[in-house]
Amino acid sequence: MVGIGPGARDEISQRALDALKNSETIVGYKLYVDLIKDIVGDKQVIATSMRKEIERVELAIQEAQAGKTVSIISSGDPGVYGMAGLVLEKISQENVELPVEIISGIPAANAAAAVLGAPLMHDYAVISLSDLLTPWETIERRVKCAAAADFVIVLYNPKSSQREWQIEKTAHIILQYKSPSVPVGIVKDASRTNESVIITTLGRMTSHPIDMTTIIIVGNSTTFQYGKYMITRRGYQL
Amino acid sequence: MVGIGPGARDEISQRALDALKNSETIVGYKLYVDLIKDIVGDKQVIATSMRKEIERVELAIQEAQAGKTVSIISSGDPGVYGMAGLVLEKISQENVELPVEIISGIPAANAAAAVLGAPLMHDYAVISLSDLLTPWETIERRVKCAAAADFVIVLYNPKSSQREWQIEKTAHIILQYKSPSVPVGIVKDASRTNESVIITTLGRMTSHPIDMTTIIIVGNSTTFQYGKYMITRRGYQL
Repeated sequence: MVGIGPGARDEISQRALDALKNSETIVGYKLYVDLIKDIVGDKQVIATSMRKEIERVELAIQEAQAGKTVSIISSGDPGVYGMAGLVLEKISQENVELPVEIISGIPAANAAAAVLGAPLMHDYAVISLSDLLTPWETIERRVKCAAAADFVIVLYNPKSSQREWQIEKTAHIILQYKSPSVPVGIVKDASRTNESVIITTLGRMTSHPIDMTTIIIVGNSTTFQYGKYMITRRGYQL
Repeated sequence: MVGIGPGARDEISQRALDALKNSETIVGYKLYVDLIKDIVGDKQVIATSMRKEIERVELAIQEAQAGKTVSIISSGDPGVYGMAGLVLEKISQENVELPVEIISGIPAANAAAAVLGAPLMHDYAVISLSDLLTPWETIERRVKCAAAADFVIVLYNPKSSQREWQIEKTAHIILQYKSPSVPVGIVKDASRTNESVIITTLGRMTSHPIDMTTIIIVGNSTTFQYGKYMITRRGYQL
């Protein structure tokens, strides 16, 4: 399970590059395989569409069981809403005997934070707003608790064409605990060629364009904006 | 601000390596500068001891203002309890005009997760137990809320020779919400030569060796152990 990082070629670790080069088969979501197509070269590729994760893992395990060295890729880090868990769940369920290795990548949240400045400088909670695999009640409870405890909050999968109300509801919940003036960073495609960055406020957050590949970072009570930077205080006396 | 990742040379991104190579001055905590000494070569080095972060940032800004290209390094990611925030706080406070760049690294939490399997596969909260810069009441409230909402919980700075009771108190709080049988991963020096990994349970967590460079990951209600792996379910129907 190989993390290819947020998108830029030079943000992939050497360990990940070596693993990809040493693999006979590359398995992944089509868009991510395309990001590394020069490394993939003429290797065997199994690229499936979104929401075909289980099929992808089954195919990867089959290839590995047939003796191939297989890389199953995730953007960002394979351990953060990526493929590492699903592969291990499947291996544990079927008692598959295979040597596996998880190779970290820079998570999308951290890449987004870097282009915003330093919004994650204190305790933070990472929440996916996708209710495809998680009951909405669980997500809502987490948003509420994270806001109540003044965490910086990172939102993955905030909105898609099929899920539009979740981000509105989330903003509404957070506003019960945090001020509408709290800085919010909205980053799309961090470290890819079409990267876009907005710093706004909690009160105005949902008036900006948001989609599946957007990462939203909501500040805590110490977060401030300085020019193009969003900064959360660590607590130093300066 | 350059993230050198968890420790292994091949987990540093090319972007970070290039920034280090193109710098005239390297500023950092001594231990981290030593990790990359072959890259540092005969460059100017400003290495200070722990808790000298403010001094380090002031020296780095002085060098940069004198026209030098300066890398100020953090282990892991500079945006996660690293130097990015402090540099930007200082720049904002003194209206310093300097071009700055934040180069992400793989955070210690994600490196620890990778050696444990896939414990962060669902929503997670990252909390530092160090009360040097943060009131203990704030930390305690965050631990309580994170446990109540069934987040996977990542604990940074769990214990030091001067701070011994905080991890005991934290375990006690989490046990009010989570079962003593919940899997807990304890990782020291992930991806460094002396890496050590323990998978235990919440009930037994504090009986294991824990120090400042240990990352602790407490599972959520779906987390399970399978052999040497700690796995949090994403919610797929397998």
